[in-house]
Amino acid sequence: MKAIYMYGAGDVRTAEVPDPVISDPADAIIRVVRSCVCGSDLWPYAAMERSDEGQALGHEAVGVVEDTGAGVRGLKRGDLVVMPMFSTDGTCRFCREGVLSGCENVGFFGRQGWAGAQAEAVRVPYADATLMRVDADADDTLLTSLLTLSDVMATGHHAAVVAGVRPGHTVAVVGDGAVGLCGVIAARRLGAERIIMLGRHHSRTGLAVEFGATDVVPERGAEAGERVRELTGGTGAHAVLECVGTEESTSTAIEIARPGGGVGRVGVPHYPAVPQAMAAWVKNLRVGGGPAPVRFYLDELLPDVLSGAIRPGRVFDRAVGLDDVPDGYRAMAGRDALKVLITP
Amino acid sequence: MKAIYMYGAGDVRTAEVPDPVISDPADAIIRVVRSCVCGSDLWPYAAMERSDEGQALGHEAVGVVEDTGAGVRGLKRGDLVVMPMFSTDGTCRFCREGVLSGCENVGFFGRQGWAGAQAEAVRVPYADATLMRVDADADDTLLTSLLTLSDVMATGHHAAVVAGVRPGHTVAVVGDGAVGLCGVIAARRLGAERIIMLGRHHSRTGLAVEFGATDVVPERGAEAGERVRELTGGTGAHAVLECVGTEESTSTAIEIARPGGGVGRVGVPHYPAVPQAMAAWVKNLRVGGGPAPVRFYLDELLPDVLSGAIRPGRVFDRAVGLDDVPDGYRAMAGRDALKVLITP
Repeated sequence: MKAIYMYGAGDVRTAEVPDPVISDPADAIIRVVRSCVCGSDLWPYAAMERSDEGQALGHEAVGVVEDTGAGVRGLKRGDLVVMPMFSTDGTCRFCREGVLSGCENVGFFGRQGWAGAQAEAVRVPYADATLMRVDADADDTLLTSLLTLSDVMATGHHAAVVAGVRPGHTVAVVGDGAVGLCGVIAARRLGAERIIMLGRHHSRTGLAVEFGATDVVPERGAEAGERVRELTGGTGAHAVLECVGTEESTSTAIEIARPGGGVGRVGVPHYPAVPQAMAAWVKNLRVGGGPAPVRFYLDELLPDVLSGAIRPGRVFDRAVGLDDVPDGYRAMAGRDALKVLITP
Repeated sequence: MKAIYMYGAGDVRTAEVPDPVISDPADAIIRVVRSCVCGSDLWPYAAMERSDEGQALGHEAVGVVEDTGAGVRGLKRGDLVVMPMFSTDGTCRFCREGVLSGCENVGFFGRQGWAGAQAEAVRVPYADATLMRVDADADDTLLTSLLTLSDVMATGHHAAVVAGVRPGHTVAVVGDGAVGLCGVIAARRLGAERIIMLGRHHSRTGLAVEFGATDVVPERGAEAGERVRELTGGTGAHAVLECVGTEESTSTAIEIARPGGGVGRVGVPHYPAVPQAMAAWVKNLRVGGGPAPVRFYLDELLPDVLSGAIRPGRVFDRAVGLDDVPDGYRAMAGRDALKVLITP
């Protein structure tokens, strides 16, 4: 089958590889119906060291179950499923607590040797615990929104949950990528009254406004802080969603949070230490975040996608087939595309 | 009256200053019955720049109301009171939310030009909102425990609350100073099943065990992390109380927290950025903390002190009069004393 591999910075290729096979009774093989490129894929795209064997890519997929291991109970051939960005055993102490990223058998798709979802098919370990069955017919539009449940919508929701968004809150979202935009949806969904999007790309901030953002702040750094303080009567936001992962964006997030507020940092951190240690302390902020416990959130998020109450699939603004995925990476890295859909 | 001032690193003196007077209708003057030296006073004691006018010291006091402004309603001359480490107006939006350190009129005693409690008397702004009346006769022993409610007991409790201590949890406490020891009391009080004290001073860790610590880890840095992992079946602690304020102690705190856990950092941060940005993210930790909302906690903590259910006053191991406070600073800075009581 065809699968996408990265062999070094900027070097993404469509490879021909063996079809995946069941290797454990808890496995399922899914045929990928929709996949996509993630903003987090752009970090290795910018900096990956050369590798002859390469790394499979992709951790977001909607698929159809093609085969299941002997131990799989809740899925059968033909089921439509959402594949969360990592697999979890569903039985360890961390899974039982909902701390899925701490799963003792966690496997991050498209990372560290694991198979990727930017492919025709993918093997999913612990399929019963990992996959979310979708009992609905899905058209093209619905498929894209379902696909965001693999990562970006669940991740934006995680940022909002960790930041402590409550009805009536003023929320700020740092970053106008797909996660930030989904963060706007999540904040609105959780009852935020005012949502300030920090971003400067018109097409993206325009979508943010359609998703529920009430204000757009194009400034960065200290100027962004001043602007948010102006907009919030001098106090800052109750909850801040950090959806970038740089030191500057994290510094801004802490800067614009009000005393007693929360910061949900879901951007993969590309900095050694969380800045503003004293400011966060003086303001008694809660700073949390990490990989979203996707499967844990799907019981809550899937119904809203199925009903059309939220339409996060609108973040996709380009579609490619597997052969053109390298173009998709180039487009996202060059900020010509917000998020690239893959139809294998 | 006599009051303690600091004029530079290592230069603490007993000064003769005018008696405090009511300068606002919301003020009260309290005669200090007990005060003390705080671990946080040792930071300026080590590094304060020279100042001719000096800085008044002390933010912990039990006192008796001597005079009240015309606007004070709930206090009268002769009332025994606990003075929290900072004054708050009780009416601003942050006070109403319990985020007292964010009070729009906050005043930190013994800091930035504010009067100090290491004195015969002190002026307390917003007395009704700031002071906690104690309706009990207090002997010497009770007075010392009441005094810890000004800061260290409330701060240890804050660390435990922010870290999310729940019944049955494994809790780790980094730092065997007075706040760490009170953190042990707080963790026990909130139902922790296992409490691991990271500290190496026998007299202090001994007291920690009396307060409820179940394990003592004298190692530091990476070795401490290994030791705590050994003690917790490889996972780390549900909640970690960071009660020192250095980069190393904060790094250790994050290192020993289990996935999904919380870190309450209450040590005044003497580092620019919170270390272990990636580890905290991968583990989905919540890292919070700051100045404890003391007055907010007193409704909960005071009854337990009055009943003798908790005896945090045991952290005091030396007592001095106002004339001997400089000796008290030397003893604490030299780690000859854990916490020095002042009887004016």
